[in-house]
Amino acid sequence: MAEFDLIGRLARAIPGQGPGVELGIGDDAAILSPAPGQRLVVATDTLNENIHFLPDVHAADLGHKALAVNLSDLAAMGAEPRWVLMNLTLPGADEAWLDDFAEGFAALALSHGVSLVGGDTCQGPLSVTVTVLGNLPASGGLQRDGARAGDLVLVSGNLGDAALALNRRRADKPVEPHLAAAMDRPVPRLELGQGVLRLASACIDLSDGLLADLGHVARASGLGAVLDTGALPGSTALQGLPRNQRWNLQLCGGDDYELCFTVPPERRDEALSLGETHSLPLAVVGHMTEGEDVVCKGPDGAPFQPRALGWEHFRGTGLPDD
Amino acid sequence: MAEFDLIGRLARAIPGQGPGVELGIGDDAAILSPAPGQRLVVATDTLNENIHFLPDVHAADLGHKALAVNLSDLAAMGAEPRWVLMNLTLPGADEAWLDDFAEGFAALALSHGVSLVGGDTCQGPLSVTVTVLGNLPASGGLQRDGARAGDLVLVSGNLGDAALALNRRRADKPVEPHLAAAMDRPVPRLELGQGVLRLASACIDLSDGLLADLGHVARASGLGAVLDTGALPGSTALQGLPRNQRWNLQLCGGDDYELCFTVPPERRDEALSLGETHSLPLAVVGHMTEGEDVVCKGPDGAPFQPRALGWEHFRGTGLPDD
Repeated sequence: MAEFDLIGRLARAIPGQGPGVELGIGDDAAILSPAPGQRLVVATDTLNENIHFLPDVHAADLGHKALAVNLSDLAAMGAEPRWVLMNLTLPGADEAWLDDFAEGFAALALSHGVSLVGGDTCQGPLSVTVTVLGNLPASGGLQRDGARAGDLVLVSGNLGDAALALNRRRADKPVEPHLAAAMDRPVPRLELGQGVLRLASACIDLSDGLLADLGHVARASGLGAVLDTGALPGSTALQGLPRNQRWNLQLCGGDDYELCFTVPPERRDEALSLGETHSLPLAVVGHMTEGEDVVCKGPDGAPFQPRALGWEHFRGTGLPDD
Repeated sequence: MAEFDLIGRLARAIPGQGPGVELGIGDDAAILSPAPGQRLVVATDTLNENIHFLPDVHAADLGHKALAVNLSDLAAMGAEPRWVLMNLTLPGADEAWLDDFAEGFAALALSHGVSLVGGDTCQGPLSVTVTVLGNLPASGGLQRDGARAGDLVLVSGNLGDAALALNRRRADKPVEPHLAAAMDRPVPRLELGQGVLRLASACIDLSDGLLADLGHVARASGLGAVLDTGALPGSTALQGLPRNQRWNLQLCGGDDYELCFTVPPERRDEALSLGETHSLPLAVVGHMTEGEDVVCKGPDGAPFQPRALGWEHFRGTGLPDD
């Protein structure tokens, strides 16, 4: 049973719509309206040992990542982060570990002007839950359900580095620094999210892998999509791999925390120029279609069948291991 | 090392003050100001197996309690709850358990008009984190730091029932239904909190035991306090116990989720009449003093020394077991 089914089961049983709920469960974050004309975005994510991080994770990396993955959800909404809450469960009271954790968390919070306003600590298996709140302009927004047939699909940065790092660590192989950084220190694309706010028809952050996450956009928008595997952006480490392995990592690897967004084809140049504004490569990797299937094609136009649909935390990793 | 020290250590390392933070970490909840003149209250709490609930807890009770303890924090601020997020970690995907959990959660959410707007699920040892958001009027508020010397200390309901239920369950003794309900189905005192909003000088909800929680109010207000053990409200089950055992449960038992608030002596009658308005007994149990000690006195005026300061989750329970 997948994480998604469990959330759906809870969401069906518990009232989710009500006064002040502009957008409820099912997107990267919820949009609340505490007062007329005012919008607040809120997102939350738990990271658990052996599911979201390895037992030997560095404390500072975990502090960074726990905040980063939540800020990434706000980025996908085009929101400006303001406040954060943290619930930390620790096996013991290791002060040095805690200081390192706080340092990683604090550096990222400071760099985005985010204030810690609540939380608690508890004894138990290592787990951290972070909840972020941010502002959204009175109009406009980046939801999953706004894509239209013919819209181009763009992604930021490179794909698959974090998944390759995880595979190498699991196999006790050496991990290049830039791969380690992709897995341990993802950079939330907040400025880009705010930049595409008035341009994109839909947006999502890549946490479960491009194929699965674009699938969320497609389903929410009532569409299908075609992905062009030859256009998937990859680092030099990825470029050196056999192409099927590379494509599987780029399509199905989790933890990228890049943004994936759709724009009408006539706004292609405008969208790509945002990459220059934010010094962040953007690539057109496909387009939305009528229908309901998300399919992948190789550079020769032949279909490519990925090894897994994506990465689902509750099932354990479905990462390609070849 | 106590939970409180860990939170303090994190709070010192991570920026906590910034634009829009009216009240940061250290009270029952934070007060945020998303826009001028507008105030939002936010609180979060994690419940972990063996720390906050027993392994054989009923799913519906856990669903209720996870939301109730958070709503209790909003009650202590005088806030009106609006939205909630939930992070649920489960050992496996047991649909019947999940449905029961959701039912307990949903019933309480519905009764207070609270909408579930976010969350996630994950595999691991049973744990639930709930984050609530609510409204607060543009002025007024119930913080811990507003008490003045001479103010009366009032509490709602009965004290010690939940702690007695826990002791009996741990000893495999029978538990009367009203004790079980106190432990499993605490009632957040939201209406009372909103009622005392313009009357009380300080307020806190009782989660760690009256002695510890009034200690938080006293410290935050730069005061001491005297508690009158003879005035502590107790159910008939408590009244049947030897008095030292009773007092220890009432002073040091956790999980009461009643409100404790302070009022100027001249507003005593006005405060007590709120109990009638809300059909909830209120008792004057002491008063605030100059100094910094919270002391307990018996009906004869002799000092009473409780067996424990309070109940700290990170140390395990310090509950009196006699």
